[in-house]
Amino acid sequence: MEKILLSHGGGGEETRRLIDRIFRKGLSNPVLDPLEDAALLSFDHKKIAFTTDSFIVDPIFFPGGNIGKLAVAGTVNDLSVMGARPRYLSAGFVLGEGFRLSDLKKIVAAMAEEAKGAGVAVVTGDTKVMPGVDFSGIVINTAGLGAVVREGLSASRLRPGDAILVSGTVGDHGACILSARKGIDFQLPIESDCASLWTLVEGVLSTEAEVHALRDPTRAGLAGLLTEWAEASSVTIEIDEEKIPVREAVRGACELLGMDPLHFACEGRVAIAVAEVDAEEILMKLMAHPLGREAAVIGRVASNDPARVILKSSWNTRRILEPPSGELLPRIC
Amino acid sequence: MEKILLSHGGGGEETRRLIDRIFRKGLSNPVLDPLEDAALLSFDHKKIAFTTDSFIVDPIFFPGGNIGKLAVAGTVNDLSVMGARPRYLSAGFVLGEGFRLSDLKKIVAAMAEEAKGAGVAVVTGDTKVMPGVDFSGIVINTAGLGAVVREGLSASRLRPGDAILVSGTVGDHGACILSARKGIDFQLPIESDCASLWTLVEGVLSTEAEVHALRDPTRAGLAGLLTEWAEASSVTIEIDEEKIPVREAVRGACELLGMDPLHFACEGRVAIAVAEVDAEEILMKLMAHPLGREAAVIGRVASNDPARVILKSSWNTRRILEPPSGELLPRIC
Repeated sequence: MEKILLSHGGGGEETRRLIDRIFRKGLSNPVLDPLEDAALLSFDHKKIAFTTDSFIVDPIFFPGGNIGKLAVAGTVNDLSVMGARPRYLSAGFVLGEGFRLSDLKKIVAAMAEEAKGAGVAVVTGDTKVMPGVDFSGIVINTAGLGAVVREGLSASRLRPGDAILVSGTVGDHGACILSARKGIDFQLPIESDCASLWTLVEGVLSTEAEVHALRDPTRAGLAGLLTEWAEASSVTIEIDEEKIPVREAVRGACELLGMDPLHFACEGRVAIAVAEVDAEEILMKLMAHPLGREAAVIGRVASNDPARVILKSSWNTRRILEPPSGELLPRIC
Repeated sequence: MEKILLSHGGGGEETRRLIDRIFRKGLSNPVLDPLEDAALLSFDHKKIAFTTDSFIVDPIFFPGGNIGKLAVAGTVNDLSVMGARPRYLSAGFVLGEGFRLSDLKKIVAAMAEEAKGAGVAVVTGDTKVMPGVDFSGIVINTAGLGAVVREGLSASRLRPGDAILVSGTVGDHGACILSARKGIDFQLPIESDCASLWTLVEGVLSTEAEVHALRDPTRAGLAGLLTEWAEASSVTIEIDEEKIPVREAVRGACELLGMDPLHFACEGRVAIAVAEVDAEEILMKLMAHPLGREAAVIGRVASNDPARVILKSSWNTRRILEPPSGELLPRIC
């Protein structure tokens, strides 16, 4: 009998197959089927973006944030990358019997602070409690609504010649959670990059630049994101490995554990595909923002077909970048 | 140290205090604060209703439905009672490692069928997996968007003279889950009333009747709903106990267990407060709908102040109807 595996929640290949086989097959409709980070709706001529995300991160408090901050920032970011100004959030709490009220207060305070900073209001909510024998932690679902300010951003819009940028170092959130979970004390502290990206994205979209796609590399990391873009657009993407910004501490942690920082989640970074001629302008725009100081151009769309991502090393070796698969770290976000 | 108790999830007094102390205090804003079943938003002049609900019902399959059908109907109903035509849903799944794929398929199929019947589309989703040691079941969150067709429906709009109606028998869902959970084999089978109410509500709102409030009596049952109405509107509501439709099997189960059917959840019923002069028209409208055949006028708003609900028996005794409190049946919806 087939059962749910941890790998079904990793955000990589297995997650995609599960979605295709069960969710997309069962619930198919033209708005759902593109499987972008948010659905684009039309309410009489008014364009609205709508998205949902459940957060199960463990530990719930970690360097750089907690599950409440993450639940607001994550949904704000899913709206932002679809070209929508985040406006309203819902918050659904599932609490285990025995969960500390003092922890809940801290989590809600972090949500309030992050929402205020991002210019969104939590306007509707729900609270359920599970018997402790069934579940003892906290799950937060946030759904979000945004006003679409830029249409046409899509994973399927990459074209040969596009430059690929990232807004900062990759893998910080994943490495932070891993070290917090395993109790590993790395020489350098690792903080999550958890942050709301709307003002950064707004700056990018305020230019005349021909931006084709935006996305935040979460569960499956930058490798998962680039692979999805390559497949959705049927293009070959070439990435210069040494241009990808990775913190020393994150690189060290990955080497120690035999893991790839490109498979690690970010929670405050965005990848951008933009027409080559506009790459410099977007890079400057990113670097002028506090959350984009370490932005970099990391590669380009080399050609149509085959759909794949090639990673070029500084010694000029080339290898195909694979999305993560198998059992990644569970409860990462 | 204060901790979350099962009673915090019952939908009654303790839930309300938790919401007041932590959620409303932390996240306060004019749209959230009324705490109606859905938030009413304005997207440039377009009125939209937005709501969220997490479903943790146990068992996940029960007579009359399953958690998937419930997750669609529950959110459809929260939009409907705020006078909004349900349009779009999100679906966030949290799955325990080891959950059966065949069960997930059945659940998604039920969601698809219920969504189709209710005229809504699931347009965005999310899937997370928990290690089996943390959680082994399924949680579904649905958030919903609707187009507001009738403004001004509110728990705070009841006026002396209003008639109070219910669209059918009360307590069926709660009694069904209880008997399924406890393995109690009552003489008469009890089915959940789980159903999407939009077409029923649409009929009510298509009249010229002066409807003041609509709400579906879920977790805290009809007693919880009426108490909330009395307090939000500062009115005394008088209910004729014998006019409340209760199935024989539900009444029998309650007597056996020493419980009150007015404290039991419904998932396919609506209570309506309407100007007295229009009560007959609304009753006829309800009874003409397949989901409203057993509708009844059960009482009226007797006076301003004090805020309370009085239950009158057939022997003309009068008692104050209390909302449920303490540990109700957990995981009811």
